[in-house]
Amino acid sequence: MAATNGSAPLAPALSRTYLTEYRVHEASGFDTKVFTKEKISIGGKDEWIVRGGRHLFSKLPEAFSGIKQIGVIGWGSQGPAQSQNLRDSLEGTGIKVKLGLRSETLKKGRHPCEDKGFTEASGTLGEMYDVIAESDLSILLISDAAQSENYEQIFKALKGGSYLGLSHGFLLGHLKSIGQTFPKDLNVIAVCPKGMGPSVRRLYEQGREVNGAGINCSFAVHQDVSGRSTDVALGWAVGLGSPVTFQTTLESEYKSDIFGERGILLGAVHGLCEGLFRYFVRNGVDKAEAYIRSVECITGPISKGISHTGLLSIYTNMSDADKKLFEKAYTAAYHPAMEILLECYEEVASGREIASVIDHSKRFRLYPIGKIDSTELWQVGDKVREARPATIPVDPVTAGMYLATMVAQCDLLMDAGHAYSEVANESIIEAVDSLNPYMAFKGVAYMVDNCSRTARLGSRKWAPRFDYLFEQQAFPKLADLSSAPIDAQLISDFRNHKIHSVMKVCADLRPPVDIVPHLTHLG
Amino acid sequence: MAATNGSAPLAPALSRTYLTEYRVHEASGFDTKVFTKEKISIGGKDEWIVRGGRHLFSKLPEAFSGIKQIGVIGWGSQGPAQSQNLRDSLEGTGIKVKLGLRSETLKKGRHPCEDKGFTEASGTLGEMYDVIAESDLSILLISDAAQSENYEQIFKALKGGSYLGLSHGFLLGHLKSIGQTFPKDLNVIAVCPKGMGPSVRRLYEQGREVNGAGINCSFAVHQDVSGRSTDVALGWAVGLGSPVTFQTTLESEYKSDIFGERGILLGAVHGLCEGLFRYFVRNGVDKAEAYIRSVECITGPISKGISHTGLLSIYTNMSDADKKLFEKAYTAAYHPAMEILLECYEEVASGREIASVIDHSKRFRLYPIGKIDSTELWQVGDKVREARPATIPVDPVTAGMYLATMVAQCDLLMDAGHAYSEVANESIIEAVDSLNPYMAFKGVAYMVDNCSRTARLGSRKWAPRFDYLFEQQAFPKLADLSSAPIDAQLISDFRNHKIHSVMKVCADLRPPVDIVPHLTHLG
Repeated sequence: MAATNGSAPLAPALSRTYLTEYRVHEASGFDTKVFTKEKISIGGKDEWIVRGGRHLFSKLPEAFSGIKQIGVIGWGSQGPAQSQNLRDSLEGTGIKVKLGLRSETLKKGRHPCEDKGFTEASGTLGEMYDVIAESDLSILLISDAAQSENYEQIFKALKGGSYLGLSHGFLLGHLKSIGQTFPKDLNVIAVCPKGMGPSVRRLYEQGREVNGAGINCSFAVHQDVSGRSTDVALGWAVGLGSPVTFQTTLESEYKSDIFGERGILLGAVHGLCEGLFRYFVRNGVDKAEAYIRSVECITGPISKGISHTGLLSIYTNMSDADKKLFEKAYTAAYHPAMEILLECYEEVASGREIASVIDHSKRFRLYPIGKIDSTELWQVGDKVREARPATIPVDPVTAGMYLATMVAQCDLLMDAGHAYSEVANESIIEAVDSLNPYMAFKGVAYMVDNCSRTARLGSRKWAPRFDYLFEQQAFPKLADLSSAPIDAQLISDFRNHKIHSVMKVCADLRPPVDIVPHLTHLG
Repeated sequence: MAATNGSAPLAPALSRTYLTEYRVHEASGFDTKVFTKEKISIGGKDEWIVRGGRHLFSKLPEAFSGIKQIGVIGWGSQGPAQSQNLRDSLEGTGIKVKLGLRSETLKKGRHPCEDKGFTEASGTLGEMYDVIAESDLSILLISDAAQSENYEQIFKALKGGSYLGLSHGFLLGHLKSIGQTFPKDLNVIAVCPKGMGPSVRRLYEQGREVNGAGINCSFAVHQDVSGRSTDVALGWAVGLGSPVTFQTTLESEYKSDIFGERGILLGAVHGLCEGLFRYFVRNGVDKAEAYIRSVECITGPISKGISHTGLLSIYTNMSDADKKLFEKAYTAAYHPAMEILLECYEEVASGREIASVIDHSKRFRLYPIGKIDSTELWQVGDKVREARPATIPVDPVTAGMYLATMVAQCDLLMDAGHAYSEVANESIIEAVDSLNPYMAFKGVAYMVDNCSRTARLGSRKWAPRFDYLFEQQAFPKLADLSSAPIDAQLISDFRNHKIHSVMKVCADLRPPVDIVPHLTHLG
């Protein structure tokens, strides 16, 4: 591989350090006066966690000391779950949970939240800025776009010394990209559930019967003027039903989150599927079969295998012949994937990606976000899913390329200083336990067309980049599979990767119930 | 077309204004004490130009009054041309033209510039910072990357009150993206030839025999501390042999230039060719024929037609049946093209694109820019070019999509406030007279792999975006050509577009010789 040929590393020695700048500041540890922290060893590093459970709900008044009202703002994915979970957990404590919605929404007549008991008559529903102004903790669950458009008015409404709660670090990223900061007199905390809102509610309810059911969360304390922010954040997480709460920083959270959805969670998997489909068709495979060997294989058996028995099992369960093909595909894909992942991470970390999303929103008056499901691949997919075969074998080329991309993303995030629990979650767990099962149900394009605006725009932007670089750098190496090269070091690195032990620890900390509901309910 | 379906404009009335921010400041006119300015009417607007010619070389001492030495820094594409042209034009005036190169380059032994008469012995060659420090006008022709890495040292070397000459606005864009400015005590001017260095030299030499031969230039005065910057810039342009010199601003120049190469000049045409090729193959066309109907058609007959008889002639020369197909393809492509062009323009104008290029360069230690010519399309192309048919017909679908993209780019640049001469140059003339003929010779991928780093990175970034949006939004509309919609307003806008009269004026101002050399010499 010539030095001028991109995606070939200049020198092996250099290839283990990817980022020279844009590293995140690691979380500095925390102290809690209310809950019990526990040290875990993960991938050879120590992290501190807090275990939750219903027996701890009695500690919530102490955790929320001084907080009389929690305002939950927004009724999107997280709003219904967080408002109900917190209300149920705080029952009998005298701490009120009040929902805040936009005045235009309230004027439209009866709102679904009223069926869940949030009503103006009972004083648990109000106009969002009024609710923010009244609350001691305001949990902001409106969309990224709404946050970026309304943050000034929100900051103005917040009481000095009160708590601003976020479930995602986007607002910090937006403020950084425009050179702004949070008002200095606020406590700024985050609790980020590692699942979609409906799962946060469903597992909380299961938790009444199944001990430990619930969605794990990460938490962060970004500004602490009261000196009590850690316990307030942990109380929020415990109140949501989080079985295990990990520490992160707001910076680390938004970078890994916005990057992750552009990478293996959405953008990379979309681009890779488009490329694999064309690759198989070019090599004489029938189109339906090509769809099965690419999309169905990733969203089906590969995801299930990783979820149940780990990344390495996908490889070790293969025949010797398939292992060789896997190794060739892994070798071909790792560096092109890393090249685009690096670019993407730096776009996110520099603030350019978020500024670009904001600018894009302003163009919606001319061009709203289009759907992407009219292309040949997804048309073929619709037909394949109607008559899905009972078993789908693991294609070694697909598996090699997919795992190479996934491991490249882990390598990058570890190198950038993210906590290993976060690396595993944003690169693997969210993919195989949350998004890929949805994709299996309706296709990757449907998933992209039905996620948040930030994620959709990101996926539309980065999927083509992964596709092109795989097409230009990876697939040419696989044109003749018999002579395709294997990078023994890369394969050895994969076999001995610390992500395998990280994933084992994460598996031990998983809730004892299925996170993904039965797929027939997802329509 | 539903409002949520991207690339369908919300309302026709809105569709004529694309940019709400990021408009450029138009040039404010100029006065010259040495040369004669001439008013031209172009697309219904007035612009001022200066005509050049060898009879004006006698005025150069007056234009360069106070300038004893002109330093030309760099020996890339423009360096050899500009240093030789200026030296020849200034012969006998006593104004010295001295070439500046990096010390490492000078240490490497005999340099090609010595064959052109630039030698240390004759005092016309030196280390670049020494030459800058000695010169009254320093013309900086090093690469964008070298400019961004070394600008601080260059600014330090420049004499207070001297002239910094640029042939491209990249450095302004870079400084803006990092919040810096040019030192206040410098005159900052630009002369930007509308052709590659070898053409600037070759046509200058032809100008000895053919009156009016030469490459047109734009000029800009960005900072004028001497009060004489306009005449210095015009003297530089005349000395290069520019037959017609247009006015622009440094801001307008870099935005249209960096945007244009990401758009129709490189990025868009690459993405469109990939998409068209797949579209034809999907519809049963043989691969070699699909290459001819996409790439060969654009770089051959469409480019020649536009160059010789204008954009509209491509359409009016068609049969009625082909006109309908053209209209359907134009309708399908215009809005997807505009959607990506808008995003691209805002990335450039915001400074994010340039900051991203700078960051990308830092990653070259791991991943240098890879070649893109290994994909199926270009492998097919190699074979097609070996046995190129004598005549290639204009495919109406290809022509409709290509012209829609080109006109969308013109609409955007006009809307953003660029001078019409600049719009025509960066969207049409440079494509059909300069880049596309090279692409005809070796393919689009070869062109992308062999242009400047800024252009290569941009093309690799934006081509996939055009490809995907055409695939997702345009080609589905063309799946059944018999029922594909025609937007009568779009077609009427195309037929009556002011770009046609702009192009007629530009054609009158073209040099009377071929700008592109015989293609067999380009290998």
